[in-house]
Amino acid sequence: MTPDWIAVDWGTTHLRAYAMGPDGVLAEGGSPKGMSALAPGDFEAALLEVIGDWLPAGQMTEVLACGMVGARQGWVEAPYRAVPCAPVARDGLCRVATQDARLDLRIVPGLCQTRPAADVMRGEEVQIAGALAVRPGFDGVICLPGTHSKWVQVSAGEVVSFQTFMTGELFALLSAQSVLRHSIAATGWDAEAFAAAVSETLSRPERLAARLFGLRAAGLVGDQAPETARARLSGLLIGAELAAARPYWLGQAVLLVGSEATCAPYAAALTAQAVPAETLPAGACTIAGLSKLRGT
Amino acid sequence: MTPDWIAVDWGTTHLRAYAMGPDGVLAEGGSPKGMSALAPGDFEAALLEVIGDWLPAGQMTEVLACGMVGARQGWVEAPYRAVPCAPVARDGLCRVATQDARLDLRIVPGLCQTRPAADVMRGEEVQIAGALAVRPGFDGVICLPGTHSKWVQVSAGEVVSFQTFMTGELFALLSAQSVLRHSIAATGWDAEAFAAAVSETLSRPERLAARLFGLRAAGLVGDQAPETARARLSGLLIGAELAAARPYWLGQAVLLVGSEATCAPYAAALTAQAVPAETLPAGACTIAGLSKLRGT
Repeated sequence: MTPDWIAVDWGTTHLRAYAMGPDGVLAEGGSPKGMSALAPGDFEAALLEVIGDWLPAGQMTEVLACGMVGARQGWVEAPYRAVPCAPVARDGLCRVATQDARLDLRIVPGLCQTRPAADVMRGEEVQIAGALAVRPGFDGVICLPGTHSKWVQVSAGEVVSFQTFMTGELFALLSAQSVLRHSIAATGWDAEAFAAAVSETLSRPERLAARLFGLRAAGLVGDQAPETARARLSGLLIGAELAAARPYWLGQAVLLVGSEATCAPYAAALTAQAVPAETLPAGACTIAGLSKLRGT
Repeated sequence: MTPDWIAVDWGTTHLRAYAMGPDGVLAEGGSPKGMSALAPGDFEAALLEVIGDWLPAGQMTEVLACGMVGARQGWVEAPYRAVPCAPVARDGLCRVATQDARLDLRIVPGLCQTRPAADVMRGEEVQIAGALAVRPGFDGVICLPGTHSKWVQVSAGEVVSFQTFMTGELFALLSAQSVLRHSIAATGWDAEAFAAAVSETLSRPERLAARLFGLRAAGLVGDQAPETARARLSGLLIGAELAAARPYWLGQAVLLVGSEATCAPYAAALTAQAVPAETLPAGACTIAGLSKLRGT
């Protein structure tokens, strides 16, 4: 197998690589050596562990990488491009010098915004480009749920503005490391409790801070099930995100990009607000976005 | 030195004890053996390490202990008393059998509430009783800022209702364990940024979720100082607490009980809302509250 090029999605905690042929993915591989686990000098070896066998001797193979690998704490800092701009651009790529002469490696820069509020993204810009490749001519709002959810206004092929929410990270911290961990199940769900919590926060966002400890108290004083508490915490936090992101989704159709599991609660919450939401898988969007960046 | 009795404040992370004489504190001591560091069988030894030397041989000394020592994961579970009720009551004390015959140990139960929302407290009820001893006849609102802040409606010597906020724990998790840690100083302050953030959340509470990641982005894209980010995070979270606690403080004077450092930002935020706020020190209130529980 000799790939035409290699697509790499290199985030904070994971590295995922795809050997690409004329008809799509020939092979894929990965490792837990994300950006946060590596010092600058360790990135090349971590990459070769995963893709080394795919590289033919005596020639260079184009490798396009996106995500936190291009952060200040990553392999090489790929300076942000400022919105409004196309989500990705070939001439924005950051070329990286490598020891192994078979690598023609380029890192995709993230996007930054100074107005209306300071914000940054790294990796999602490629998924946005991929979503636009899958839905050519799309104009409107893309939401990428995750550790740091992004809401993105797209028009005429450009990212106009975006906003980041720490919803996924807040859920992880509160459910696993705060006092709420005693009352919250690690798995399980309660769709009704989720919907009620989203609705509560959307209608009374100023009450959010008063609801959180109640998840603990309702397990001590009452008989709230830990699965209900889990769905309710998710609902309160996604409700708070939707309350703050209302200017993005009100009266719009929303394109969700992410894993099915991550997007499903967002789709349910948006549908309950009469907002149509279609989900595109993140992995396919990443590959489609990187494909647009290939050299010709 | 032979104390008349011993006051013990035994929380999640610390044990603090006071040898009490007719005119107040004769001696004090402490250890880092809080409830979370101890198995049920280890509590007596941990207590004797601190107070053993104060106990005369051949007689029993009354020891009154409050805080998480009485939680389900503590030494002995002291069942909650339900509000409305006086903050403490002698006949609610939970007597604990000990190996050492010199100990006459009683644990103060916490308070619970089922309406208007499930809530619990352990330890603060003693500080409330102490504040009422220091300000006899006080009717109104007491706020006890901390890891889990409490807002308490007091009337005719009884706790009528209360509400817990996870503000201190949220600040600790976000500033030390989330992605914001890269942009937030461990110490330092910016009073102007704090006041602006409180005001922002109070006037637009629905925007809270959109502000948090901005603390990171403003350090990457702009030139926000880490001390400013620290004050701003505190302001956003205390603003969210005040927005949710508005029914407690609106048009009221508030009695703050806690350490000077913990109460100062609350006093500043309330004063900016034209709410008079007086601060009482937590330690003195704990001792005053336990004093009211002594046997006669």
